[in-house]
Amino acid sequence: MRATDIIRAKRDGSALGRDQIDFFVAGVTSGTWPDYQASALLMAIVLKGMTSEETSWLTDAMVRSGIRVDLSAVPGVKVDKHSTGGVGDKASLVLAPLAAACGVKVPMMSGRGLGHTGGTLDKLQSIAGFRVDLSMDELKAALEQTGVAMLGQTAQIAPADKKLYALRDVTGTVESIPLITASIMSKKIAEGIDALVLDVKTGRGAFMKTVDDSRRLARSLVDTGNRAGVRTEAFITAMDAPLGRAVGNALEVVECVETLKGRGPRDLEEVSVLLAARMVLLAGLEQTPDEAEQRVRAALGSGAGVEKWRQIVAHQGGDPRTVDDPGRMPSVATRRMVTADRAGYLSILDAELVGRAAMALGAGRNTVDDQVDPAVGAVVFARPGDRVRTGDPILELHYRRESDLPAALDLAGRAVTIADEPPSVLPLVVEEVR
Amino acid sequence: MRATDIIRAKRDGSALGRDQIDFFVAGVTSGTWPDYQASALLMAIVLKGMTSEETSWLTDAMVRSGIRVDLSAVPGVKVDKHSTGGVGDKASLVLAPLAAACGVKVPMMSGRGLGHTGGTLDKLQSIAGFRVDLSMDELKAALEQTGVAMLGQTAQIAPADKKLYALRDVTGTVESIPLITASIMSKKIAEGIDALVLDVKTGRGAFMKTVDDSRRLARSLVDTGNRAGVRTEAFITAMDAPLGRAVGNALEVVECVETLKGRGPRDLEEVSVLLAARMVLLAGLEQTPDEAEQRVRAALGSGAGVEKWRQIVAHQGGDPRTVDDPGRMPSVATRRMVTADRAGYLSILDAELVGRAAMALGAGRNTVDDQVDPAVGAVVFARPGDRVRTGDPILELHYRRESDLPAALDLAGRAVTIADEPPSVLPLVVEEVR
Repeated sequence: MRATDIIRAKRDGSALGRDQIDFFVAGVTSGTWPDYQASALLMAIVLKGMTSEETSWLTDAMVRSGIRVDLSAVPGVKVDKHSTGGVGDKASLVLAPLAAACGVKVPMMSGRGLGHTGGTLDKLQSIAGFRVDLSMDELKAALEQTGVAMLGQTAQIAPADKKLYALRDVTGTVESIPLITASIMSKKIAEGIDALVLDVKTGRGAFMKTVDDSRRLARSLVDTGNRAGVRTEAFITAMDAPLGRAVGNALEVVECVETLKGRGPRDLEEVSVLLAARMVLLAGLEQTPDEAEQRVRAALGSGAGVEKWRQIVAHQGGDPRTVDDPGRMPSVATRRMVTADRAGYLSILDAELVGRAAMALGAGRNTVDDQVDPAVGAVVFARPGDRVRTGDPILELHYRRESDLPAALDLAGRAVTIADEPPSVLPLVVEEVR
Repeated sequence: MRATDIIRAKRDGSALGRDQIDFFVAGVTSGTWPDYQASALLMAIVLKGMTSEETSWLTDAMVRSGIRVDLSAVPGVKVDKHSTGGVGDKASLVLAPLAAACGVKVPMMSGRGLGHTGGTLDKLQSIAGFRVDLSMDELKAALEQTGVAMLGQTAQIAPADKKLYALRDVTGTVESIPLITASIMSKKIAEGIDALVLDVKTGRGAFMKTVDDSRRLARSLVDTGNRAGVRTEAFITAMDAPLGRAVGNALEVVECVETLKGRGPRDLEEVSVLLAARMVLLAGLEQTPDEAEQRVRAALGSGAGVEKWRQIVAHQGGDPRTVDDPGRMPSVATRRMVTADRAGYLSILDAELVGRAAMALGAGRNTVDDQVDPAVGAVVFARPGDRVRTGDPILELHYRRESDLPAALDLAGRAVTIADEPPSVLPLVVEEVR
């Protein structure tokens, strides 16, 4: 088998065979496929696409490039959740304890933030002492003791994805539904889960800007998961404006705890309950979506969710006092409010620009090697559709270095649009894909 | 300027700007663009194309990656000819002396053979002592003394093309009209010529298999040459069967000398006269195609052409006795005839398969590092359209090693198709593009 024949076949629009895809992924993993041949094939895939069968084969080959975690010794149905990434998207920290409190086993492997979207690991690590580098034994122990583990992917999980992603990032080959699908699903399938709930974000702050593209991605992800024997369902949810009010690592953790205490923003609570309920349903703990939702709402109302969160923090070495004393979380005293410069309706609060403003303050990463500042970020004071008067607060920037402020204020200012008429706002939950 | 932005722009179907193309070519030449980014952009160009303006900019940037030869001190109009490559395509060796005998200055830079098509340099070097590695001073001296120089491209001519071609060869990105155009035309423009006649081959043995593709390539080449200030015209000529009878380096040189003596195959003579006449016309030595053709035919009939060939061989260090004594050319005594296995009309003599048969005997290269055997090859005994009886000779293989024969016989056998009805044969000269 020759690399050039495979590249030419895809270039000419043919579907690749399973053996050709295996040869490619094994070659990338071992280094026998030079980067220049891999990037030519990646570009051909971006422009010519892949069938759902090819996508499944690619995903499977990437799973087999590393280990597939065996969680069969842990009793119960193991269900994870994955979001395609948004601004202020901290729902994992709310839904994982809620689902676990309902009896779901939640082995949640997450990533770090990159670009304008945040990452669950960065949020967790804003809690003093919180360890995300659990071993496979520690993962199993956590699942048995608290029912939930929140950790990073180890280097043994889908190493082909690490290599391919690094190459895609510098060759303009990120934007491809088959490649995105294989990247996400190979890591999730390798976790050894039984079922997966996906939150596919759509809109200004999402990777997929249109509902059509989001729907195509959701369909590809769901089909690939199900073909691999992982029951997979997806919701498409709105990401035009940030989810909840807080953007920034410690700020988001504090908001999650408030939400678990029943005092969080309505949109964050709604998405978290929806996704946790679907995890309960896929775990077979309830028979209908309504029953599953009632069970999750009961865990929220009874305080079982926040109690589970306290257990997670304590079990993974974090300071459990942060749960009742948000003053123990990192914060900065220096803040600057962005206000309405005219009266009208807040029509756009552009999630991507808010995310980039938080990044400019140090909350996120430009490159994987950047350090994040857990304390900085932004807090939203008005939502799209709100009526505002001149001078009303819209967005507060929490900054550490004065020198970061001009760039962040510029981005934050551009994120805000005020109009005479109320905007049409996408519903929070756009649709379900299963 | 960032490589990824340029790759993404082309991926999304945008036309690149001149500065972006310059940045790419300069980066490839200096090595600051990694191969993996270059190959991703090349694949995007293959699949999304380039406008004729972009193609011209790419060509110009590749010219500027090296030297542009200054032949202004040499009096007369400098005209070269380029063929896109065929099997048995030795017309350069006939038309260069004919055009020079008519007063055209012919600075002919050629390449080596690769794959199933032969290369002019390999043919010339089958003549004992013939030097093709002329310096720029030797090139000018030859143009002043004999009016013609036949040499290889130096490393200073379009070095970007050398790097890009090596990368295209291993990344499935050869087949692209803009990339082929820039590769051919950058080298020709850098030669310092005033005009160029192109022979764009079409059919089974050509790079472009259909007349439509050949027409698109010819149009792109002609437009790019003219934009660069080199008067460029093209003929599309048939390459379904080998041109002339000989395929293989020394065999082809002998056939060229026969043709210059008026005893060559009709098709080779016709193509050579046509192209030489167009060189005479572009040099301004005659006013109409008919007058130019008469002038070339006169040079052929008077023996001025073969006399010019003798001068070229002598001037470039080759053995001039080869002109009158073909026995001084390399040859092998071991030959095998492929005969008709049934009666009928020879309907196909597949040029590519004949070329590959000759290659299997050692006449050509699989990779640029292979050595060629000047003596081996094939000689055609019947042309498509000929009526044949069982056992009639079709193709004679000249081989050195018995062990090469099975593969060559298999290819040669597959090259021959005999049918009950006479085939429809493409006219030798399909059309003119100017």
